[in-house]
Parts: sequence; structure tokens; C-alpha cells
Amino acid sequence: MRYCRIPDETIRRLPVYLRGLLFTSEHGRENISSQNLADLVGVNAWQIRKDFSYFGDFGTRGVGYDVEKLTAKIKKILKLDIAQKAALVGVGNLGSALLAYHGFVTYGFEIAVAFDANHKKVGRKIKNVVIEDISNLRTLKRRKISLGIIAVPYQAAQVIADKLVKAGVRGILNFSSCYITVPKKVKVITIDIAMDLARLPYYIPAS
Amino acid sequence: MRYCRIPDETIRRLPVYLRGLLFTSEHGRENISSQNLADLVGVNAWQIRKDFSYFGDFGTRGVGYDVEKLTAKIKKILKLDIAQKAALVGVGNLGSALLAYHGFVTYGFEIAVAFDANHKKVGRKIKNVVIEDISNLRTLKRRKISLGIIAVPYQAAQVIADKLVKAGVRGILNFSSCYITVPKKVKVITIDIAMDLARLPYYIPAS
Repeated sequence: MRYCRIPDETIRRLPVYLRGLLFTSEHGRENISSQNLADLVGVNAWQIRKDFSYFGDFGTRGVGYDVEKLTAKIKKILKLDIAQKAALVGVGNLGSALLAYHGFVTYGFEIAVAFDANHKKVGRKIKNVVIEDISNLRTLKRRKISLGIIAVPYQAAQVIADKLVKAGVRGILNFSSCYITVPKKVKVITIDIAMDLARLPYYIPAS
Repeated sequence: MRYCRIPDETIRRLPVYLRGLLFTSEHGRENISSQNLADLVGVNAWQIRKDFSYFGDFGTRGVGYDVEKLTAKIKKILKLDIAQKAALVGVGNLGSALLAYHGFVTYGFEIAVAFDANHKKVGRKIKNVVIEDISNLRTLKRRKISLGIIAVPYQAAQVIADKLVKAGVRGILNFSSCYITVPKKVKVITIDIAMDLARLPYYIPAS
């Protein structure tokens, strides 16, 4: 099922809510008000209510939202109710950190394969993933992996993106500080860590 | 100067625009239309026009926005017109990747100091930064560093956040997959890499 009219900005916030709900659930709570969720995740309560209204969940006055039901609903919308496998390209410092990262499991993700161009790294094992030569990228279609993570130096990012697209990848998480161009059918999310840091000084009063 | 009524969501997008403008400038272009900027950074053109209108830049019909002027204006709003120094806590895989990351320079940032609890790492030098013992955190106030980056395991994140706040840090970039609690005067931006990945499957049609 696809909820077609959900705005991109709402989709961007859904994983934020999901994380808050999972945290709430872990702490044994069955219901949460929009205000409590707002305090937890740092989004306005009215925004949360508006976002949830897109898929018809309005909570119950005085009780709030049913954590379990809402979790299941968001997972379904985001297609996180089925296990998702991703391929990592580039096993440098960042790539190694990604392989070791526990957070992916929370959302049902697994970095199932990893590639590097450096022959010295090929064959090494990090967290049960054996690093493969980058020429193996074309096997992704056969292995039914449609998500790719680019953690290579920016000079190589576009070439890798082209290869991933050719191998049937439909979603790319791009960690290079470079704009990459892909066909319209492919979705790219670029994470530029410096961009997030760049918002901080705005909030800090001059000393 | 502080533009008080700029919404947080606009502030979140300003670094995205800034990155696009810097890229445009590097390619020798002096003007850019909202549509061209939209294509480059992946935000709707109307959204861009609306965001820029908050600080009174409406561009020139048929010419577009003056890249240099707009760059300077956004930098000023975000307080990126002055050099910003940040302290990194935790020099594991992720921390090492952050130290080696070139992208910070784009926004006038420098990771000036790094701390780790592991004595074996203390004294080592990565990219001109000598790793210091975590007990040195309290020297941050004296060194006039008010930005902190947390890249420690999640179990240690809150303790480190408390220490950073005590040392006078007013803005924290949190890479741990953990909610941290800070006084209201401190701004926290949490980057959960898995959350960004979690948006991708939504955009991928079932195969």
C-alpha cells in the first residue's frame, strides 16, 4: 500500500517518530500523547498531529496514540515491515563505522554486502561481512539488493552511483560531499555531515 | 544580527542552499534561478523562494539570485561568517572519519580538538589534531570552544553531553543513537544515520 499524498517532509519525519515510538515501547509504555512524543523527538506537537493525520491516525483524546499500532503503521508506510538489505561501497573509516553501526537493526536494515577498490581490503571480514572487490557490484541485481550506500571519496562518487544504478539499485544513501546525478526512477538521499553542523551556530548566542 | 522569525525548517534548509550556491560559484556562475537551484539541491523552487523571502531576498525577475550576495547573506544568518571551532569526543571509526572529513572547511568549521577515553589513543595525531585525554574536556571554556561533536558509544553519550555542557558548550552534534537531555540553552542536533536510510524504501517500488 502506498499513501500517495504524504508530503516528502512528512516522510522525512516518520523515521524520527518511529525512533521515538520504539524508545517508548522499550520503556514499557503503551500509549503516548503527541506532546510527550514532541518532547522526546524535538518536533512540535501540532506538526506531529498533522503528520499522523495524513494516514488517518488521530489518537484518542486523553489517552493519546497506541504505540504498537502506530509503530506498525509507520513501518508499513515506510516499507520497513519487510527486511531490507543494503550494499555498502567504500570501506574506509566511515564505511567501517557504518558496518559496525548498531542503529540499522532498529529499522530492519542490514548491510549485507560491502565493496572496496583496495585489493588489500578485499577478503577481510567486518561484522560478518566479507569485503568484496568492486567489480562484484554487478552481482547486486542477482542478489536482489536494491539499496546502496556510497562512502567513497567524492571523486569516485558519480562513477559508483552509475554502477549501482546499472546493477539495479533503486535507492542510494550518499555520504560523499558531492552531487550525484541519477535517473528519475532512482532516489538519492545525501548526508552531508557538515551541513548538519552548519545549523548549530545559528542557535548559539554570541558570547 | 538575528532574524528571529525564520522557522527551524527554513534554517535546516539554509545549509543545503549554501552548499548549492558554493557549488554554483565554483563553476563560475554569478546568478542562479530558484528553479536551477531547486534542481541542484532537490528542494522545490517555491519552497526556496519562500525560504529566501524570510530574509528579504527575492531575486531579480529573469536574472535570478546573485550567488555571491546570497551566499554572504546565508552565511551571516547561520553565523558561518566567523570561523567556528568544534571539539570532537570519541575517536573511533566514526570520529576518525570526521577528523579526516574535508566537508567541514566548506562551512568554515574546524575540528580543533579531539578527546578519547582510551589511553592508547591519547597523544596520537590525526590530521594535525592531537588526541587528548577526556579529562581535558573542562578546558574547553578557556579555549573558547562552544561546539561539541559526540561520537562515543551510546552508553556514554549522556555523560559526555553533561560534561560538554559543564564545559560551556552551547551546541552539540550528537552521532550516538541515543536521546540526550541538556538544559534549554543548549542546542542538540542528533544525526542518526539509520534514520536517513529508513526513508529510502518508501521511494522504491516493489519489485
